[in-house]
Amino acid sequence: MFTRLLRNVPPFRRIVGVRSYLKSSPAGYSVTETPEAEPSAPVVVTSVPGPRSLALKQELDPVQNTDAIQFFVDYKKSYGNYIADVDGNFLLDLYTQIASVPIGYNHPRMTQVLKDPDHLSTFVNRPALGIFPPSDFVQTLADSLLSVAPPGMRQVITMGCGACSIENGMKAAFMAYRRNERGGKPPSKEELDSCLINQAPGCPDLSVLSFKNAFHGRTMGALALTHTKWNQKLDFPSPDWPIASFPQLKYPLQDFVSENSTEEKRCLAQVEDLIAQYRKKGKPVACVVTEPLQCEGGDNFASPQFFQGLQDICKKNSIYLLIDEVQTGAGATGKFWLHEHFKLREPPDIVTFSKKMMLGGLYFRDHMRPTEGYRIMNTWLGDPSKVLMLREVIDVIKEDNLLQRTADTGAYLLQVLEEAQTKNPSLLSKARGIGAIAAVDLPDGPTRDKALAKMRELGVHLGTCGTATLRLRPTLTLEKKHVDIFADRFHQVIKQLS
Amino acid sequence: MFTRLLRNVPPFRRIVGVRSYLKSSPAGYSVTETPEAEPSAPVVVTSVPGPRSLALKQELDPVQNTDAIQFFVDYKKSYGNYIADVDGNFLLDLYTQIASVPIGYNHPRMTQVLKDPDHLSTFVNRPALGIFPPSDFVQTLADSLLSVAPPGMRQVITMGCGACSIENGMKAAFMAYRRNERGGKPPSKEELDSCLINQAPGCPDLSVLSFKNAFHGRTMGALALTHTKWNQKLDFPSPDWPIASFPQLKYPLQDFVSENSTEEKRCLAQVEDLIAQYRKKGKPVACVVTEPLQCEGGDNFASPQFFQGLQDICKKNSIYLLIDEVQTGAGATGKFWLHEHFKLREPPDIVTFSKKMMLGGLYFRDHMRPTEGYRIMNTWLGDPSKVLMLREVIDVIKEDNLLQRTADTGAYLLQVLEEAQTKNPSLLSKARGIGAIAAVDLPDGPTRDKALAKMRELGVHLGTCGTATLRLRPTLTLEKKHVDIFADRFHQVIKQLS
Repeated sequence: MFTRLLRNVPPFRRIVGVRSYLKSSPAGYSVTETPEAEPSAPVVVTSVPGPRSLALKQELDPVQNTDAIQFFVDYKKSYGNYIADVDGNFLLDLYTQIASVPIGYNHPRMTQVLKDPDHLSTFVNRPALGIFPPSDFVQTLADSLLSVAPPGMRQVITMGCGACSIENGMKAAFMAYRRNERGGKPPSKEELDSCLINQAPGCPDLSVLSFKNAFHGRTMGALALTHTKWNQKLDFPSPDWPIASFPQLKYPLQDFVSENSTEEKRCLAQVEDLIAQYRKKGKPVACVVTEPLQCEGGDNFASPQFFQGLQDICKKNSIYLLIDEVQTGAGATGKFWLHEHFKLREPPDIVTFSKKMMLGGLYFRDHMRPTEGYRIMNTWLGDPSKVLMLREVIDVIKEDNLLQRTADTGAYLLQVLEEAQTKNPSLLSKARGIGAIAAVDLPDGPTRDKALAKMRELGVHLGTCGTATLRLRPTLTLEKKHVDIFADRFHQVIKQLS
Repeated sequence: MFTRLLRNVPPFRRIVGVRSYLKSSPAGYSVTETPEAEPSAPVVVTSVPGPRSLALKQELDPVQNTDAIQFFVDYKKSYGNYIADVDGNFLLDLYTQIASVPIGYNHPRMTQVLKDPDHLSTFVNRPALGIFPPSDFVQTLADSLLSVAPPGMRQVITMGCGACSIENGMKAAFMAYRRNERGGKPPSKEELDSCLINQAPGCPDLSVLSFKNAFHGRTMGALALTHTKWNQKLDFPSPDWPIASFPQLKYPLQDFVSENSTEEKRCLAQVEDLIAQYRKKGKPVACVVTEPLQCEGGDNFASPQFFQGLQDICKKNSIYLLIDEVQTGAGATGKFWLHEHFKLREPPDIVTFSKKMMLGGLYFRDHMRPTEGYRIMNTWLGDPSKVLMLREVIDVIKEDNLLQRTADTGAYLLQVLEEAQTKNPSLLSKARGIGAIAAVDLPDGPTRDKALAKMRELGVHLGTCGTATLRLRPTLTLEKKHVDIFADRFHQVIKQLS
């Protein structure tokens, strides 16, 4: 994907290729611990949601709004890349809990983490991690989060979820920005007093620049950076912070090199303008926050050059760059972090994570480190039991060579989408993706939704994003045989829709 | 405690009393599953933090700011009300991970939850709960959260932590407020469009009223309601939302009935004034958020009448009342929720929880229920494995009659504090508490910190809050024998400080 988006920089190793896939190792886990295994193909015995799902939904409805529930899941029966619902259906899961299952359901190695008596106390006793950490925390961190830290980053703080990670990433940026402004002086008494009542100078009127169609979470700070759907935003007060355009690339990329380059330059110019505007407005930008790929907003890619340019603008303005890898990290793209494909001149200042990482958190560079205690803090600060699980996920990724496998399988999947698109240019467009991230557009939302429903009838579970995009987010253990099943069902559906 | 704060309402059953304690059941758990048990008394073999804690802290420091770390914990060896550190010390824990351990460390019943093969898949597979809930979720919710729902509330949504609970509680209030304003009409196109770029009318300039010295969390929305310490607030932009005074009661309560009543009326008048002011300012208040007892801010109690008055003001202004029970719920006060002591004329609109509840979330009344899907949502929405653990906690609370025990043991503990205060009026003041919540003030911060350090040297682990307060937050399994140990060490320390 990014090979096609790279311009004027030395090409990096093409990480995809059907041939190398064929040489890759067989399925990463052998089913010895449990009698369960993936079915050889999807099994569909009812509509989805089926009658049991609908009955459970009705039972839950007096307690909470259930409009978003798609179906109820039998997590005991789900296995690997197959999700089992309560009606006896087994769907090939290419959406994986909104891209948050790294190595499949009930992976024997994960089950083993739970069964290990040595881990029991970590699951039973949840600490106030920033104050009373467990004895093995330093080692567990080293074996897990630090072993996959983005190049150039060695500071890490764990969090409970993606939104909290973004919130605290922004706080790190605000602190660093104000430290710079103070030039080494301690905060004044006026600052210390005024901050307690939300007033300047203690609570300065700083802002964060985000992008149209971005999604970063739903707490007030994260939500101020989120601009995808009204149901996430309507009725909630939000600060006046700058919002720039994110590149809208035209596909196929090779046919629109010059147009896309112009589009990216337009967006970068807008970023610079907004930074200047908001400085004048008395709301200076302390931080630029971006996804390395806009997921919820429509799987919108931009080129490495775009992100390089963004970093240059941040450096020039002495502000910080936060790259939000909540949906794109944990090896989904053949590298552990998507932004590693960007060949940035230096590491980003902050990288946030969650989802497939089993818990939230943020990496940051040394200059972003809080200089006082209790500045980035909450009671739980994540959960060490999730760090144990993450350590196992990372071990499996390394031992089973899942980065390479994901790159290879992803290339195979992308090829399927591209071939389908070539054959059905009136129905499909913008096939795009890298590794366990893939997407293709349909002519409009209703047609996309119809395709999704028909795929589910045939036993393949997909997601959506943007306005007319099918979103694929398989696990890192996806294999060619799964892609073949997807391809078979997808061709049937496209034929029906033609 | 609240009996003394009640005025002009029928007295409710006095829930405390040493005599009833003596009749209560013996220790709630029998040690059969594990060889471990509480030591009969604290064991202190090094200073705390000891050399191993300090070494681990030094090892962690290159990775994150460690200034807030007090000591490293051996969670395997911790048991019941005793926390074991990595240096071989066993401290009687009256702080319990900032009030977040409901029934003690390694409770055999909690260990059993982890060992039950039937629960394995719930721990291994974390769902996107609002979209693909597990088959047993309706039942597990009914057995856990709904079985202890505050009277009059039957809507519940789970969350990952306390801050996210507050954030989403406010969102529920904003939505309900705007629904009222729309009078049944759907949102306009202008609202739907403008909300995506943080602008009115879609993102209206609504506000939330909070109280001085309140603590509600550290994400941007929750932090806007938090006014305790500069290290939580400095450098972070925050909205201009109204902040009222919280009553500063004088002790002993029975000597200041009239003064305290005047103080509470003053604060309520301020609430009314601020609501009027911010309406005029174009930032109408949609919601009042309060702790039922200000914890972090200094264990500041107010009377049931104060909260009744607050609810009256909310009703009169057609705005909502959110009571934040993150630190006070889960049976800590002899009732499951502290606000149950208030005899409110009707239930609050929203109640948030976390900490001892094992996961975050919010209860709300039917009229606060979102009318569309995806309005209160995030990927994980908490974690069903924590709901399983909560169910067990609730079962233990019920089976072992821990509400009554907590009330009784708490009364015994409060008596200890009051007697010490009577004997040492120059050192101790404002002894206060209810159930597993207790506090006493020292003359100033440094003396309080000295007392804390000396107590730790004698094997008793306490917390602090406010400026000069010792904060006690034991588990619900605290017994008279533990209070006796605390009393013995506390008398020694007070003698040393005299």
